[in-house]
Amino acid sequence: MADLRASQIGAVLFDVFGTVVDWRGSLIADLGAWGAARGIAADWAGLADAWRDAYAPSMDAVRRGEQPWTALDDLHRASLLRLAPRFGLSGLTDADLDHVNRVWHRLSPWPDSVAGLRRLRERRIVAALSNGNVALLIDMARHAGLPWDFIFGGDLYRHYKPDPETYLGACALLRRPPETVMLAAAHESDLAAARACGLRTAFIARPEEHGPGGAAQPAGDWDFAVSSIEELAARLG
Amino acid sequence: MADLRASQIGAVLFDVFGTVVDWRGSLIADLGAWGAARGIAADWAGLADAWRDAYAPSMDAVRRGEQPWTALDDLHRASLLRLAPRFGLSGLTDADLDHVNRVWHRLSPWPDSVAGLRRLRERRIVAALSNGNVALLIDMARHAGLPWDFIFGGDLYRHYKPDPETYLGACALLRRPPETVMLAAAHESDLAAARACGLRTAFIARPEEHGPGGAAQPAGDWDFAVSSIEELAARLG
Repeated sequence: MADLRASQIGAVLFDVFGTVVDWRGSLIADLGAWGAARGIAADWAGLADAWRDAYAPSMDAVRRGEQPWTALDDLHRASLLRLAPRFGLSGLTDADLDHVNRVWHRLSPWPDSVAGLRRLRERRIVAALSNGNVALLIDMARHAGLPWDFIFGGDLYRHYKPDPETYLGACALLRRPPETVMLAAAHESDLAAARACGLRTAFIARPEEHGPGGAAQPAGDWDFAVSSIEELAARLG
Repeated sequence: MADLRASQIGAVLFDVFGTVVDWRGSLIADLGAWGAARGIAADWAGLADAWRDAYAPSMDAVRRGEQPWTALDDLHRASLLRLAPRFGLSGLTDADLDHVNRVWHRLSPWPDSVAGLRRLRERRIVAALSNGNVALLIDMARHAGLPWDFIFGGDLYRHYKPDPETYLGACALLRRPPETVMLAAAHESDLAAARACGLRTAFIARPEEHGPGGAAQPAGDWDFAVSSIEELAARLG
């Protein structure tokens, strides 16, 4: 990052699931409370982990063209239908399944996310760049108070990250060269794909994304490596 | 609108130029101040009106396929280059022309717009549905404080209103049936095209859009006809 001047960065794009919001903690808390109110004693942590494990393979099937374009809401629902019996969720009505599936619209931010995004947004465009579909991300932003200037959802390009169409599509809509746009993410594969497209990169450590005991140090040499969005805002100035 | 229940409307889309922001007053004020500081005595009101007159024909050329997809920023700039000599703006540098062209990114809202959008947004998704490109509309939202949940810009679909791809494209990304989505606009041709796609309609009177003396009464029978966004928010409840 010796050659990076922070003043060149006019827009910061954020991966969302895991980087800005705590999907695992939110799923367990939201569905746990819902289940308790209805007397459903499912294995919510097990469901959360298995559901997330199904995430990348389900998108890969679309990416490889084995399946026509399918928005994340629909991939999530297909995975949920398959996983429900294994985690104590047999016999739910369609309306209940919809409610459970829409938990991804109701995720809560990490403690530093909203303040950090607000601070970054004072001087730069701040946008989501997520595999979530636009409707999901709108609901989530309203629920969590995420102050996005724009939401780049997967259904804008009908491509999932790490396809280059997503990173370059965002830069094209922003009408900015990739070297003036930064991706901030907790996942190094996402950062590597963005870098290959010419974007700048910021690793945000989220060691608790998958529960206690995760790693906080990145393996790669990113333009920034920080432990919160507030720290990124301070570093970018 | 006898058959319209306001509770069915989950999202309100807004035309932007003229409906939410005062393009004519903003152009005259912004460029007038800029010109005064540089000793440029151009006919700013004349430029504003001629520039806006060039707007629909420039998009029509794209719509008819006589010109490949061109974002509004670029249509605006081509029109500006053609009009500049007529209004006292010969000999501007490229940087100056860029600054003048980006006046469309710096438009100011009508007095009721921000409060009305905020109130509407408490209970419904509120989004821009504009022929402006995304980058233009992001800048404008930051400048004017417009609290969009999302921005549907023409470059998302590479279509300009009133092409149905714009109205239906917004509904598809929202994953909502058109009858649960309302277009709010000061222009009846826009409302008619939205209605033809199945959307609900709200006419917002902006009699001063083109200067003093405009009409406040719509010719059509829209679901709502109001004189401000705050009134629309109150009526929708």
